[in-house]
Parts: sequence; structure tokens; C-alpha cells
Amino acid sequence: MKRIGMLTSGGDCQALNAAMRGVVKTLVNDKQKVEIYGFLDGYKGLIYGNFRMLTGNDFSGILTKGGTILGSSRTPFKTIQDPDENGLDKVEAMKQNYHKLQLDCLVILGGNGTHKTANLLRQEGLNVVTLPKTIDNDLWGTDMTFGFQSAVNVATDAIDCIHTTAASHGRVFIVEVMGHKVGWLTLNAGMAGGADIILIPEIPYDIDKVIEKIEEREKNGSRFTIVAVAEGAISKEDAALSKKDYKKKLASKKYPSVSYEIADRILQKTGREVRVTVPGHTQRGGSPCPYDRVFASRLGAEAGKLILDGQYGFMVGYKNREIVKVPLEDVAGKLKMVSPDASIVKEAKLLGICFGD
Amino acid sequence: MKRIGMLTSGGDCQALNAAMRGVVKTLVNDKQKVEIYGFLDGYKGLIYGNFRMLTGNDFSGILTKGGTILGSSRTPFKTIQDPDENGLDKVEAMKQNYHKLQLDCLVILGGNGTHKTANLLRQEGLNVVTLPKTIDNDLWGTDMTFGFQSAVNVATDAIDCIHTTAASHGRVFIVEVMGHKVGWLTLNAGMAGGADIILIPEIPYDIDKVIEKIEEREKNGSRFTIVAVAEGAISKEDAALSKKDYKKKLASKKYPSVSYEIADRILQKTGREVRVTVPGHTQRGGSPCPYDRVFASRLGAEAGKLILDGQYGFMVGYKNREIVKVPLEDVAGKLKMVSPDASIVKEAKLLGICFGD
Amino acid sequence: MKRIGMLTSGGDCQALNAAMRGVVKTLVNDKQKVEIYGFLDGYKGLIYGNFRMLTGNDFSGILTKGGTILGSSRTPFKTIQDPDENGLDKVEAMKQNYHKLQLDCLVILGGNGTHKTANLLRQEGLNVVTLPKTIDNDLWGTDMTFGFQSAVNVATDAIDCIHTTAASHGRVFIVEVMGHKVGWLTLNAGMAGGADIILIPEIPYDIDKVIEKIEEREKNGSRFTIVAVAEGAISKEDAALSKKDYKKKLASKKYPSVSYEIADRILQKTGREVRVTVPGHTQRGGSPCPYDRVFASRLGAEAGKLILDGQYGFMVGYKNREIVKVPLEDVAGKLKMVSPDASIVKEAKLLGICFGD
Amino acid sequence: MKRIGMLTSGGDCQALNAAMRGVVKTLVNDKQKVEIYGFLDGYKGLIYGNFRMLTGNDFSGILTKGGTILGSSRTPFKTIQDPDENGLDKVEAMKQNYHKLQLDCLVILGGNGTHKTANLLRQEGLNVVTLPKTIDNDLWGTDMTFGFQSAVNVATDAIDCIHTTAASHGRVFIVEVMGHKVGWLTLNAGMAGGADIILIPEIPYDIDKVIEKIEEREKNGSRFTIVAVAEGAISKEDAALSKKDYKKKLASKKYPSVSYEIADRILQKTGREVRVTVPGHTQRGGSPCPYDRVFASRLGAEAGKLILDGQYGFMVGYKNREIVKVPLEDVAGKLKMVSPDASIVKEAKLLGICFGD
Repeated sequence: MKRIGMLTSGGDCQALNAAMRGVVKTLVNDKQKVEIYGFLDGYKGLIYGNFRMLTGNDFSGILTKGGTILGSSRTPFKTIQDPDENGLDKVEAMKQNYHKLQLDCLVILGGNGTHKTANLLRQEGLNVVTLPKTIDNDLWGTDMTFGFQSAVNVATDAIDCIHTTAASHGRVFIVEVMGHKVGWLTLNAGMAGGADIILIPEIPYDIDKVIEKIEEREKNGSRFTIVAVAEGAISKEDAALSKKDYKKKLASKKYPSVSYEIADRILQKTGREVRVTVPGHTQRGGSPCPYDRVFASRLGAEAGKLILDGQYGFMVGYKNREIVKVPLEDVAGKLKMVSPDASIVKEAKLLGICFGD
Repeated sequence: MKRIGMLTSGGDCQALNAAMRGVVKTLVNDKQKVEIYGFLDGYKGLIYGNFRMLTGNDFSGILTKGGTILGSSRTPFKTIQDPDENGLDKVEAMKQNYHKLQLDCLVILGGNGTHKTANLLRQEGLNVVTLPKTIDNDLWGTDMTFGFQSAVNVATDAIDCIHTTAASHGRVFIVEVMGHKVGWLTLNAGMAGGADIILIPEIPYDIDKVIEKIEEREKNGSRFTIVAVAEGAISKEDAALSKKDYKKKLASKKYPSVSYEIADRILQKTGREVRVTVPGHTQRGGSPCPYDRVFASRLGAEAGKLILDGQYGFMVGYKNREIVKVPLEDVAGKLKMVSPDASIVKEAKLLGICFGD
Repeated sequence: MKRIGMLTSGGDCQALNAAMRGVVKTLVNDKQKVEIYGFLDGYKGLIYGNFRMLTGNDFSGILTKGGTILGSSRTPFKTIQDPDENGLDKVEAMKQNYHKLQLDCLVILGGNGTHKTANLLRQEGLNVVTLPKTIDNDLWGTDMTFGFQSAVNVATDAIDCIHTTAASHGRVFIVEVMGHKVGWLTLNAGMAGGADIILIPEIPYDIDKVIEKIEEREKNGSRFTIVAVAEGAISKEDAALSKKDYKKKLASKKYPSVSYEIADRILQKTGREVRVTVPGHTQRGGSPCPYDRVFASRLGAEAGKLILDGQYGFMVGYKNREIVKVPLEDVAGKLKMVSPDASIVKEAKLLGICFGD
Repeated sequence: MKRIGMLTSGGDCQALNAAMRGVVKTLVNDKQKVEIYGFLDGYKGLIYGNFRMLTGNDFSGILTKGGTILGSSRTPFKTIQDPDENGLDKVEAMKQNYHKLQLDCLVILGGNGTHKTANLLRQEGLNVVTLPKTIDNDLWGTDMTFGFQSAVNVATDAIDCIHTTAASHGRVFIVEVMGHKVGWLTLNAGMAGGADIILIPEIPYDIDKVIEKIEEREKNGSRFTIVAVAEGAISKEDAALSKKDYKKKLASKKYPSVSYEIADRILQKTGREVRVTVPGHTQRGGSPCPYDRVFASRLGAEAGKLILDGQYGFMVGYKNREIVKVPLEDVAGKLKMVSPDASIVKEAKLLGICFGD
């Protein structure tokens, strides 16, 4: 008999349910008996002992369902090692619940923050297997994360819709794409949506280069320009600031987000009114796309396999088109960014896309 | 031989191309010869004589294409009777271009503002046939406008995406839906997306009723609440203001839009953090849905028929499932609003949806 | 306290769940206590007493879900008055189960066959409220049925996909659309997909007129022709046959369906190879479109209202944009067909669409 | 100055236009002048000298457009070395047109058959760069072909739609998926759609194993089973036949396709009626998905780069997440099949999916 705890942590994304279904189907198909404890709302459930007993049936029909049937929360990330408001040692509480329920292992689905905590639990002696969930695709140790391609689809849909309006009205439009501190989502949605300018955190932009591109397009007869801006995009000036000064600037909240700043600078410099669209949280919602369903199912199956084999301390990732196991200590605390020299960036530039550099 | 001028005016929407294709296919299928002058960027093209000669081929393959192949602009609405910055009398200029090109009639696609101008041109003696284009569905004289159902789809998609996220994180989410000063779009997208609260301009809301609903849901075990808010939604307090005071308030721009005000008030009153999503211009973009393609094609065909029959001065509308012709003077300057007593509102209330009243 | 039985019968379609949710939400929101008996697999469940007790929670989250949570079956339609294989009188059995469970009424969702049986049960003294479910839109007494618009969307998607292939390869393509014995679905999907030829049961086609249209298009430089064929389309020759001879012809099953016959006749007469695509059952599956979600919810709410008011013997339908109640005896046994003189047909012809007549 | 010929050959697929746009944008962005000759309808255009001169503008706005603006045809594949019906040597004709137009190179987009001919032209001394187009993903030398992921999406949509119907009616459904002689498309769409049984050419099936799975599901309380069948699926018996005997069997055309044979065998052996759905050509149509748009754009950009660098004789492919150039002689005449030992197959089996082996 195996006793498995499972939780989803951090911002939700598409295919979390598909991944969990993959794990459970694999466990259930095996001959051993399995008990599954679904902790509610991420690490919170593990800390406070909130869980539901789950069976194979709970995972039936959820392959195509967005969100997570376990709920999620971001809360404990930043302060996992600090006691909670009642003085409870959260890490200790998680260990106690793990041992009290006599769990054989924890299956943890999450992104960067989640993996830091997962690695901590591993260091504390718990058996952990993790799955790489994030629309940002910024997890180290895997070529791809599930949720990413679905989010690309939502963001691309938004750009497609804006495209017809921009073309009809002859305007400059900014679409602000999620992605936290990395540019994967913006780069892919921007290329898929035919954006003319793509601004990502990894390539600080020069506002004059952006304006130059807009004007060059107008000179060539284009009535409109689409700019895909990552929520974490940064200007060359800001990138030159000290971390402290940059944080201070962000804290001033002069603009709701970087897109509005860019729009305002273009207005100030050229008199052009720029429309801003922010698809926001829609990018992490809705039904997972077929790519993510297959991908998350495969990852889930391999996670189930690791558990059956008693192999712990790994994230199940994807490398060179194979599902691989990556030691948790190699994943935690690192960020997978877009290299400005990556071939996809070079190809985007060959196509005439401007990165503002 | 018929000489037809055509223009699309106001904010673009889905199925403008489908409607124009319908008109042109009908004219081209007829035995008479037809010349089509496509004025660019709305009334601007007519004022300044910017047009392209179009043939049937230009309208081939555009049934499914968003936007408008003629371009659009909003500019001249508010000031159509004032001279332009060079002192040009715009109405006079339109009349002159009409007569210089020896046009038999103008086909004008647009919403409320557009129809005011169209009626003015009719009064000035020009032959005009119009088509009811707007995602707001607020045109008098027609049960439905094209663009509306496609916009419902886009807005509903956004609510669907937010739904999975809201459910996973146990949050209150506001989705702000377009619709100008009327609630059709929000009401339909809200019902389609399963919103728990729907706030529309026609039913001023009481913020305490909104909060009461949220808390009642929580008491009943719901982890989340979805609020669909029309961009024109208004509180009971604001509705009680004089027009002047309300305009002053809006001009102060304390909040980017009404949704942020509602979110802030809920935060102030209850400490609940509310997330706001604004799909914005995406709602008027993208490919028209099948409903709009059929509907716009039918309207276009009947407009073509009117022209072949030499019947002018009408908007082609939709009444009790039949395409009808409505005298332009009956359309211009009126707004079709959601009646608080409409059966759709009653049905929404039967379903437990809260309107904050 | 109210005790309500509910069942879905006949081929499933989109928005069945949305409609049931509408009924139940309305009942649950009312102050009276309600018990809901969900009969499984259509009338079968009522005949054999198979049911599940359902609560409001069972209907939560199903607004967007295709199919029916109660299951459906077609079996008992044709032979409802005959005893089953064990000699059971099915009508009597349904009455007994109704009375044994002390039901106040039955809510029955279905199409034409379903309504015949529902009316029979009404005649037998049971309280019945029905909802008009069918992708065919062929129910008498209502302008629209739920499921229809969603099916139009699926069929249009298929035509859209075929369009790009047909255009690339310069071919004639037939897309066979569902609709049973009426042409609503084909007519709407055909117009939405830009079909050049639309063949529906109500307008028998002349194969030579079809070929003429194909050749006329080629002469005018079109590389391809899209033909939308209703599964019930019929040639002029076949329409002239006696019912008996026509049935005999169908029984010979020379062709898998009418589309293959048309393709073969075009091949025989002109040497043109015609590709046939049959989207089939996909047309009744998948998530309901926003239009159907709103529409089914409204119908469900009004059905719930009728039950609360103790008004039985009605189908809840849609007339001139209002939800209405229609006496069951006016609905049963009639078919709502496309009139060859309907304005939508005239408009389609104005657009140049050929009906083969 | 560069003079480039371009053609698309074989069955069309999504993102052909995106790929061509990528090539042309890259060439146009470069400083050299470029002349583009678009040959119409595949190799036919090159053989008979049918072409259009194209500019950058022709490729604007086609990123999202399905099909191919150049048209395609399959005709000359099987018989490329034989003279045409007028005795014309086709290979010689292509060479002559190439030289007459003083082309610097040919850009050829196509699948397996296309690549054989492309390699032949290379051997004849023409400069050739190719792009891997096929929904089948069966091209040797590249991990992925464009069109594949879009086709997975269409096929998955079909399975999703069937899923709700199958669940409602408690039936066994077969969805027949394209893929020619390989199982990539079926395997991925089947996993994405949650198929219970997946039959692909690379793993001959035992009908009794298929039936066993269906019955096992029923025993476990499942009301339905979804079977994804590749159009090239083959039974163990047929796989044991000599090639000649198998061809003879296929030629007998007892069944419209393999799915109908499987359905019939299940009916014969168990009395279960099985419904068959064949999405057919819809799988290669419609707008390319964002994944394919990005992928095809990247391949196109690199093809443009090769041309600018004067590197010929390559297919631009994808290996380990990098765009690579693959010598044409390594590609032609080989098939990339699903290995029965591939990790994706193992993972599918872990999930409980039955392959009938």
C-alpha cells in the first residue's frame, strides 16, 4: 500500500488537473493499493492538515478542466520559514502532518516558489516528487512547463482580436502579456500573433527604437503597429538603475503597469495615442490545449512511475523531447530566461520583429 | 448602372465585412451594372474624397474576417456640423463628393453616432441605406445588431477563463464588459459565463447588496464569486447625482474604470481583495461567430435589395425574426436599453443572479 | 414541498445541462423545499424506476458542460405504447413510478419524439413541463431550440476547415450537415461557412442545377465549390417517388448517405471527383456556445417558474424574442420546417447561393 | 539580386502560408533585391511554367490563414519520372523553367512525396531548400513538422465533442484520425481527447484485446468507451499478410475505412453497436494554431537565411529544440514512425490506454 499526499501551489494554470489525473491513473492502474490525500489550497492544506481523501473517480473527466480541483494559494511562499500569525512553525507543521498520515511521499505541482519549498521539504527528509507547472515556462531543468502553451493560445487570441481592430482604425496597440520576470510567453504569443514589436525583460528596450519602428512602418504604408509587451519588460534606463532604485520606482506606481508607461512615453514623444489591452488572469484560465493535455499527462504518468519505483527527490521534466527526472536541488532557486542570443530571438529578428534593442 | 458609395463608421466590430459582402454580392448578382466606391476610414473618406473602386472580388473571402476592409474612424461624430480645422464645412463636403461622383446612394454601416449623421445626410437629400453595426446592441429599431453575439462570445470566453482561476484560488473576480451606456453585452455574457452578480447601467447598484451576495455565497460554501460589470455600470449614489456632478466625478478619474471603484469599495468595506479583468478592445475583434455571419449576410442582402428597388432612407433591421426596413428618422438619436422589467432580467433573477438592486 | 422528476430523452445536445441547471436553480432559490428525482437514460429511467436523488450541488458547474448528466436514450420512442420484451406496459410503468414517488410533476427535455411521449403522459393525467432540446430546430411552437446554435457552430467550423483545403486544391467539397428531416442546421451553417450550394430537404434539388452552378463558378475563375448538404436532402426524382418507393430506395443503402450519392452523380455526369466530409455526431457534442447557455438558462428558469406556480402541460418555448408557454397538445407530432419562401431562403438566393431548384 | 521560385506541394495543411511568409519576410528584410516566383498548384506550376510574381505585400496578413496562397496538387508525385499525357518529360520541363527564369533556388514546401521529388531536382543540379509540411509528422530528419499540432487540435476537438455524446448515451465510439501510415496524429489526439483505446499502424491490434478493454471498462462502471483509430491502423492478422495480399484486401473495399471494419467486428463478436466518426479533411484545414504559427515562422526565417547565405540542398528541420539544416538526401524516401517502445507509448500505457497489443 502506498499513501500519497498531493497538492497544487502558486498561481493556477491549465492542465494541473490533467497532470494529477496522469499521476493517479498510473498509480491506480498498478496492482498495489493506493491512498491519496489531496491537500487543499496548496501548502496551506499541508500546514493545517486540511485534506480530502481522493479516489480514481475524482480524477475522471478532469483532463480538459481548467484550474485545480485541489485549490491553490500563494500565501506561504515568501515566508515559509517564518512562523504564521499564531506562532506556528509552518515547516515543522508540514513535517508533522506528513508523518502523522504516514505518507510515503508528496506529489507537489507548482512553479518556482513552490519548488523552493519542495526542495526544503526534501532536505527535511520528506519524499517529494514535483511537476513543473507555470504559464511562464521559467523553471530551470525542463525545456517546457505545462500551462505555457495554453497561455500562449489565450494571449495569441487576444492579439488576434486586437489585430483586426488595430487594422481597421489604424492605431498603435499594446497587448500586455504575462510571464512574470521572463519573456517566453510574450515572445511566443507575439510571434504567433504577428506582433511588430516584442518587448521582453531579457532585452531591455530603448523607447526611441520602438518609436523608430512604428514610424518606419507608417512610412512603408502600414496603418497600424502591434506591440507585445511582457509584464516584466524593462527599459534600458530602468535596467541601468540599482535594484533598490528600480524597486523604489515600481513602488511609486505611477502607472498601473509597464505597458501604460510605454504608451505614455510614446504619447509624450510623438503625440500618438496608444491603446493598451491587458488580458491578465484570463491567460492562466480555461481548458488546457491538446498540447498541454498530452504533455501534462505524460509528466504525470512518469511521476506515478517514480513513486511506484520509490524514487524521490525529483522534478519530472522535459529535455530534448524526452521526459526526464531532475534532482530537486538542481531546480530550486533558478530561473530559465530567454537568452538574447537564442535562435528563436534571432529568427524573430530575421522576420523583422523589433525588440527595441 | 448603379453607383454606390459605401463606408463603415465608428468603432469597428465583427461581421462588418460580412455585411458589406452581403450587399455587394446581391448587387453583383443582379443584372444591372454596379460601380462601388469604398470610402476610407468612415465619414472622413466621404468628406475628403478618399475612396477605392471596389469589385466583387474585393469582397470574396472576407465573410469570416474581422474588422473592416474600408477602415473606420470615430472622429467626425461629435462635431459633424462644425467646420474642420481648415474651415471646411464637412456636411457640405460630403454632399459635394456624393454629387460629384454621381452616386445613386450611400450604404453606411455604423452605430448610434453614425446613424445620427446618416439621418442628417438623408435630410440633406442624399439617398442612404444603413446597417446596424455595434457590439453594444443599443440601436433603436432593431432587435439585434451584428457584432453583438461575437462580442458576447469573446466576453464569455474571458469569464470562462477567469472562472477556473477564481475557483482554484477562492477569490472574488470582476470582469469588466463593454457595452457603452447599455447592459446588453454584460447581461448576456454574464449569464453565459455563469456570473453570480451582474451590474448594468440600467439597474444602479447598491454596493452593500453586492457585498451581501458575496458573503451569502461564502456562507453557503462557495469559494469564489464572479461579478460581471458593464463599463457603464453606475451606483445608486452616482445615479442620484445631477448629470453635471456625475460628469465631474468621472472627469476626476480617480479609478481607471468603474470596476476598479467597485473593487476598491469592496476592499474598503470588507477587506476582501478583488481582482479586476478588462478584456477591453478584444471584445470587438476577431472573426465573427456563425450567428453574426448569417445575420450580417441577411441584412446585407436586404440592403442590396432595397438599393436595387430604389428604396432609400432606411436602416435594415431585425424585428420578430424578420428582416425589416426602419425609417432612419425613427432610429437616429434613440438608445435601446435593457428594461429592468425585461423578461431576461427576471429570468436572471430567478436563477439567483444578483443585480445589486 | 415539491417533488420533481426530471429526464432527458432522445439524442443528446449542447446545453441540456444548462437548461436543467436553470430549472433547479430557480426551484432551489424559492422558499419551498424541493426534492429532485433524476431519472437515468431518458424514459427508460422512468419506466424501470432508475433514478438518483439530486441536489442543487449536482447542478453547480455544469452550465458549460456538454451532454447530459442524467444520460439519455432513444430506445422507447417508436414503441412507447407496445409492451417491452418482458411484457411490461411501459406507459403504465411510468405512471406507477410517478405516483409511487408522489411526484408533483415531470420536467422532460427532448425533441419531437420526446414530446409525443410527454403529451401522452399528460393525457394520462401526469403533470408535465417540457423544454425544447434539439440541434435540428424542428420543434413546432418555438422559434428556436437549444442545442441548435451550438451545432451550427460545430458544422460551420467544419465548413471553415474544408474551405481552406478546397481553395488550396481547387476541388468540389460536400460537407454533410445533420438536421434530420429539416434544413435549418444546413441552411445556417452553410450561410455562415460561405457555402456556394445548399441542399435541404424542403427544397428538392435538381442535380443538373447543382452541376450548372459548379461549372458557372469555374467559368468565373473560382477554383472550388463548397456544397452544404443536409443529411435529409432529397432529389427532385426521389421527392416524386411514393413514400413506399422512397423508403425502399433508402433501404437499399447503395450509398452510406445522400452526400455520397450526390458526389457519385456529379462524378458520373462530369468526371469531377468530389470529396465528402461528414462531421456527424460531433455536431451534437462539446460545450454549449454562449447563445445556447443564455437561452437554455432562460427557458429553464421559466420552467422552474411554471412549476412553482403549479402550471403544467406546457412546453416552454420562444416566440418573437419572448419566452412563452405552449400547450403540449399544440407541439406534439408536428414538424417545423424551412419554408422555401422564408425570407432567409430569399436572402440566401440574393447572395447567389444555389439551392438546386 | 536573388531570384527565388517557391511552391507548395502535396496535401495542404495549416501554416503553409505562415512558413512562406517567414521565408519572404527574411528575404525582404535583407538588403539584396529579391524576385519571387510563386509556382501555382505545386510541381505542376513548375512543370508548365505557371507562376505569379509575388511581393512582400502578398505575404502580409497571411500568418493566420489556412491553406496555401499558391495552391497545391498531388498529381505528379507517383509518376514524376514518366512523361505526361502529351509526352512531356516533367523533370526536364522543371529544369528548363528553372533555368529559363534564371532562378537562384527553389523553396519547396511539402511532405514525403514532395521531398523525393525535391531531392531528385537537387540531384539534377537545381538549388533547393525545403520546409517540412505535413499533418502526419512522418518526415525523417525533423522532430516536428508544421501542420501537425493544428491537426492534433482539430482531431482533439472532434474527440471532445464525441466524448459528451458518448457519455450521455453510454456508447462505444470510434473516431478515425488521419496520419497516413503513421500514428503520431492519432496518438497525440487520442491522449489529448482522453481516448481509452488508441490503434495505430505501428502497433497492430488484436480485436479481442480491444473488446476486452471495452468490457473491462463496462465492468468498472464506465458507460462508454472512446476508440481513436488511425486511418492506417492494421490488425495483427492483416499485418501478417504478405504486402500483395494486404493490398488485395484493401482493394476489395469491403469497408469505407478501417474504422468501419473494426466497428463491424465488434458488432459481430459482441452485438455492441459502435458509432464511427470521421473528421476527415477538416483535420488539415482552418487557421494554424499558435504553436504552428511560431514554428513555421521560425523554419521559414531559417530557410530565408540559408538562401541569403547561398546554402542549398537542405531541408530546414527541428532537432532537440533547435532549428537545423538536414541534407535532402538524408530525408527523401524515409518515414518517421512511432516506435512501439517510445516513451510516449509507455506513458500512454501507464495511463491505462489500450493499444490492442
